[in-house]
This record gives sequence, C-alpha cells and structure tokens, in this order.
Amino acid sequence: MSRFWSPIVHSLTPYVPGEQPRMANLIKLNTNECPYGPSPRVIEAIRAATNDTLRLYPDPTAHGLCTAIATAHDVPVDHVFVGNGSDEVLAHAFQGLLNHEAPLLFPDITYSFYPVYCGLYGIRHETVPLDAAMGIDIAAYRRPCGGIILPNPNAPTGMALGLDAIRALLHDHPDAVVVVDEAYVDFGAETAIPLVAAHPNLLVVRTLSKSSALAGLRVGYAIGQPDLIAALTRIKDSFNSYPLDRLAQAGAIAAIEDREWLANTSARIISSRDRLTDSLGKMGFEVLPSRANFVFARHPDRDGAQLAAALRARAIIVRHFRTPRIAQWLRITIGTDAECQALLHGLADVLALNEG
Amino acid sequence: MSRFWSPIVHSLTPYVPGEQPRMANLIKLNTNECPYGPSPRVIEAIRAATNDTLRLYPDPTAHGLCTAIATAHDVPVDHVFVGNGSDEVLAHAFQGLLNHEAPLLFPDITYSFYPVYCGLYGIRHETVPLDAAMGIDIAAYRRPCGGIILPNPNAPTGMALGLDAIRALLHDHPDAVVVVDEAYVDFGAETAIPLVAAHPNLLVVRTLSKSSALAGLRVGYAIGQPDLIAALTRIKDSFNSYPLDRLAQAGAIAAIEDREWLANTSARIISSRDRLTDSLGKMGFEVLPSRANFVFARHPDRDGAQLAAALRARAIIVRHFRTPRIAQWLRITIGTDAECQALLHGLADVLALNEG
Repeated sequence: MSRFWSPIVHSLTPYVPGEQPRMANLIKLNTNECPYGPSPRVIEAIRAATNDTLRLYPDPTAHGLCTAIATAHDVPVDHVFVGNGSDEVLAHAFQGLLNHEAPLLFPDITYSFYPVYCGLYGIRHETVPLDAAMGIDIAAYRRPCGGIILPNPNAPTGMALGLDAIRALLHDHPDAVVVVDEAYVDFGAETAIPLVAAHPNLLVVRTLSKSSALAGLRVGYAIGQPDLIAALTRIKDSFNSYPLDRLAQAGAIAAIEDREWLANTSARIISSRDRLTDSLGKMGFEVLPSRANFVFARHPDRDGAQLAAALRARAIIVRHFRTPRIAQWLRITIGTDAECQALLHGLADVLALNEG
Repeated sequence: MSRFWSPIVHSLTPYVPGEQPRMANLIKLNTNECPYGPSPRVIEAIRAATNDTLRLYPDPTAHGLCTAIATAHDVPVDHVFVGNGSDEVLAHAFQGLLNHEAPLLFPDITYSFYPVYCGLYGIRHETVPLDAAMGIDIAAYRRPCGGIILPNPNAPTGMALGLDAIRALLHDHPDAVVVVDEAYVDFGAETAIPLVAAHPNLLVVRTLSKSSALAGLRVGYAIGQPDLIAALTRIKDSFNSYPLDRLAQAGAIAAIEDREWLANTSARIISSRDRLTDSLGKMGFEVLPSRANFVFARHPDRDGAQLAAALRARAIIVRHFRTPRIAQWLRITIGTDAECQALLHGLADVLALNEG
C-alpha cells in the first residue's frame, strides 16, 4: 500500500503474458507466435522507412494504413481504427464502448486480459460458462447486458462460432456493442466483417501479431461503423495521439497488402495443426477442434501442470493456465513441422517415463 | 450522442496535436521536432533488428532499454519505466499516481494534454496561473492538492525553473506526487533526476521525440523510486503489456547510448535558438527566455493569429494557440539555420507588408 498510488492501482490484478525467456535453443510454443518470419515485403518496407524522417512525428491518423486495411476488407476507410497491438485497441473499446450500467458479458474461459480491463476501468461484468463441450452457447447470453465481448475463435480453446451464431447474438442485443475479437480468425474461422454494414452494434478486432507474424511490431485494428470508430478515436486522442510509430505503420501496410503471403502461411499452419491434432489423438490426448494457430489438449491420465513442467525440462515451453476448469489442459502453439515433431517426441518420452 | 458510447466518451475534449501536413517544401516549425535526423547508430540498430525475429513478441519489460536508461542517468534499473512516447507514460501517471480526492495542480498555461488526461480519468484539477512574467511561481502551489504536474522547461513558454524551486516544491508537498515533465530539458535546463534518490514523491518524465530526434519512433520514459514505478507498471500490465515494439526498443537503446550525438545536436540547436531570439528581438518581437528547442514570441503591434496565417501563406508553419492569455503569441520550433533564416525573411516580409 502506497500513499502515492491512485486508489484504483491497489485493486488491480494485472495481466500476465506468456513468458519470453531469453534461453537459446528453446522450442517456444507458449505465446501463439508464427513459426515463420513475416512477409519479405514487410522487412523491405521497414528498412526503407528507417531514415532521417524518424525525426518527424508519425501521421496521427495512420491514414495510409487505415486505407490499406479498408481496401483489404472492402469497407470504407472511416470504418477502420488502428492501435498499438490489438491489446490497445481492446483497452480503448473497454473504456469507450463497453462501460455501461448493465454488466458486460464474456465467456468464463477466454482471453484472460478481459477481466483485467474491467478492473482498470471499473466495468461491471459477468462471465457466461462455456457449454460442456467447451463451446460458446449463444443462448446463454440472452440476458440484460451493457455489452458482449468474445474471441472467435475463442482462446484458449481454439473453437469457433459460425456466422449464424454471431448474427443471432447481434440480433439479440441491438442496443449493446458486441465485440468479436478475431485474433485467430485467419486460421480457418469465418470473419464477421461482412456483418458490419448491417449491424451498427458490431466491432471486429484484429491483430497482425499472429497470422501476419508481426508480434514484435505491435499493430492491431478494429472495424465497425463510424459511430463506434468515433468513440475509439476520442479515447485515443485523449490518451496518446500517435500510438503507431512510423516503422509500425510502414511495416503493417506492407503486411496487409501481401495477401498471397498471408494465404500461404495460414494454409501451411492449418495443415501442421491438423497433423498435430491427429498425432496427439493417437497418443491418447483429447484435442478440441481448433480453428486457431494452437491446439488445446489434455491427457485423460496425466496432470496438466506436470506435463508442462516435464516438457519444460526438455526445453519445450507450452502454456498452462492454473485456472478452474482448464487446469488439466495445455495450450500448444503450432510451430514448424520440426518443432511439432520435437513436441511429439518429448510428450512420448514423458508419457513413457510416467513423468507427466 | 450515441447509445453505444460509454458515458465518459460524451464528455471528452480530445487533445489536438500540431498538424502534420503532407505538403512538400514546407518549413515545418510547429511541433518541436528536431531539424536533424537521429544518430546514425539508431538507424543502424533498427536496420539490424529488422528481421525474422519480428514474428516474436518484444520483451514486455524492455529490460535492455531500461538498463541503458539507468546507466545513462546513473540510477538503479528498478527506477525506470518506459512507454510508447512520453504521452503514454504521462497517461499512466495521471491514472496511477495523480488521481486522488484532492485536486491535481498544474499551470494555467502549459502542455494542453494535461486537462485532457484529467477528463479521460475523471481527475479533479485546478490550474495555477503563471506569474506576470509568464513564469511558474512555486509559492502559488502552496495549497492542499492530490498531486502536481509541470513541464520543466514549461511549454509553450520555454521558461525553466531551477532545481532549488523543484526542491522547494517537493518539500512543500511530501505526501503528493510531483511529476516533472522534462520533454525539453536537454536544451539548457537542469534535470531533476538527481533529486529522485532523496524524494520518494518525485517522478521525472522524458521523451526521445525532441532532443533525440525520434518523434517518429514513440519512446518516452519515467524515472522515480520503485514505489512510483510499480504503480505505472501495474497500470501498463492492465492496459497493454507490450507497449514498445522490437524496433522502438532497439533504436531507443542506441539513441540513449550515443551521448556524444545528443550533446552535439543539443548544443547546435541551443546556438541556433540564441541567434533566432536575438534576431526576433531586433525585429521588435518580445521573446521569452527559452531553455527549449522553440521560442515563444509576440509582436507588440501585430495579431498572433494573423501573423501565423501570413507565415502559412509563405509555406512556413508555426504553432498558434487560440487560448486566453497567449492568443497573441507564436510558438516557433528551432529549425536548421536555413529554416530560421527563411522564417526571419518571411516575418520581415509580413511586417513590411502590414499583413500580420
């Protein structure tokens, strides 16, 4: 307790990101990064922008990047908002669109940053349990609320809703903002962006950290009707008018424009995921049907925390949450095929030695 | 009014940054950028970091950068906090350290983002008038408060307080955080960083945008005792755990380490400023004694807004605030010597033609 802290600081429970260890030769399958480097066009664009113009402020509206995003998704440019990673975009959405008298709703098992934002902005919220199959049950959201947020596909389950379910949710709550967090959508789920035109209450949030292999650049964006974008812009311009530096803007434009690279890399990861799912199943794991760049798996006879520790002893890091309901599960990022093989060998070894 | 906006959004008056026009051949003296490109070591470091590791998240603690800053200022590394521009660092300080029951105090004429942060976080505040000479009068702050923030040198006046005044302020308010915003300190003012060791209530905020010529990279930092740093970190980890991308971290480390470049460039700008102050005085302008990379000047017979407009018609942009008390003043960034000459010629022309 410090007399200098604002009262809110005492009550915060900050988010804990997956660790970023500095060990070399580690197989790092814990933070859903892409196992392949970004598009070569991104590298080129950043190198070209690395010059004396760094002395000048970036365009505070990031107009070039917003235009590239609008073109890629076939929406008007006034439907686009960009930020310093989707975490910042989400923070502004929580503060600017999801803080109402009625409680915000989100799944009990989901991105663990959501309750943290609620703490930061004093947002009333209720969690809605996943169903027995670990899926999101839209019917369970039919109750008074001030907003809804859910990832599609959900994390850490990897399971996706179809557009019919999203559409039903939007119809059920015409006066509440529904945020669909599509961090993982490029790995096989359906995007809700085509629903934006007909639904003034829909905000879709995206990141370049996963499918564009740019976790190190910190770029995210949102797509919604101008009324929702205006709220985010008002918050941004009251917080930090220049959230995206010149290099991030230049690199992100190149990433958004290289759609062939995105399609090829996503396809490659999807096929690795499907092979890994298969192999884990043959080893006795239960694996949820994933539409993301990770799988969520548990072994009927082994403890999740012990499995994670045994893998770590073999220099393989996966994510384990010490959380009710999912404490027996491991979230495993899809790596290169060699990394997936190393994971499978590691697990076989652990199971054979009865370490897990 | 939108039914989707959180109530706070309706009441915001967002900050308006100086314009970033896309015109070529413009003499841009409106946002206090450095007229020279950054250290060549910065360019090199960013190019070296532009590779496949962009697929990985940055170090969320920016440990390498914090270490470089700690070394440069001779403080322990746990005294350092970094953020996406000093604007983000300030935002976190307002939310985490300056939001108390008693009002926050800051000068009536100062960085116009301060009241915006108060609006964003619902912080009670009172402004304290500058004295007749446009200086900050420490005695005027002797009243109950929940915190104090002031830039040193102040903006847009450019006038600096000595360390004795800062020390007096810290002694007068042992239970309130005093934030000294040193965005412009390298241009001839005294830094309060040496006071941090003896004053648990002092937070010093810095930016690389001005004296390091890196406005385009968005890096700022704060130095204070670990208790204050902990509040900022708790806010950051509840908002966006990775505020600084990999390239910003790499470039900022190189900038902090190249102290020779910083000393030379600052000296060059100081000598341009002193020449410009002199020339403006000879043209009849009143120029406040500046310790920043800009001057604040007015002409006894000419209207500030009209002068700014007449310069703009000559492709020279300076900053003019339509604000009580300073509506007759122009804030002019120190450019290259050629740019300063062009400004003086432009002003001479305007005065001769009676346009201003």
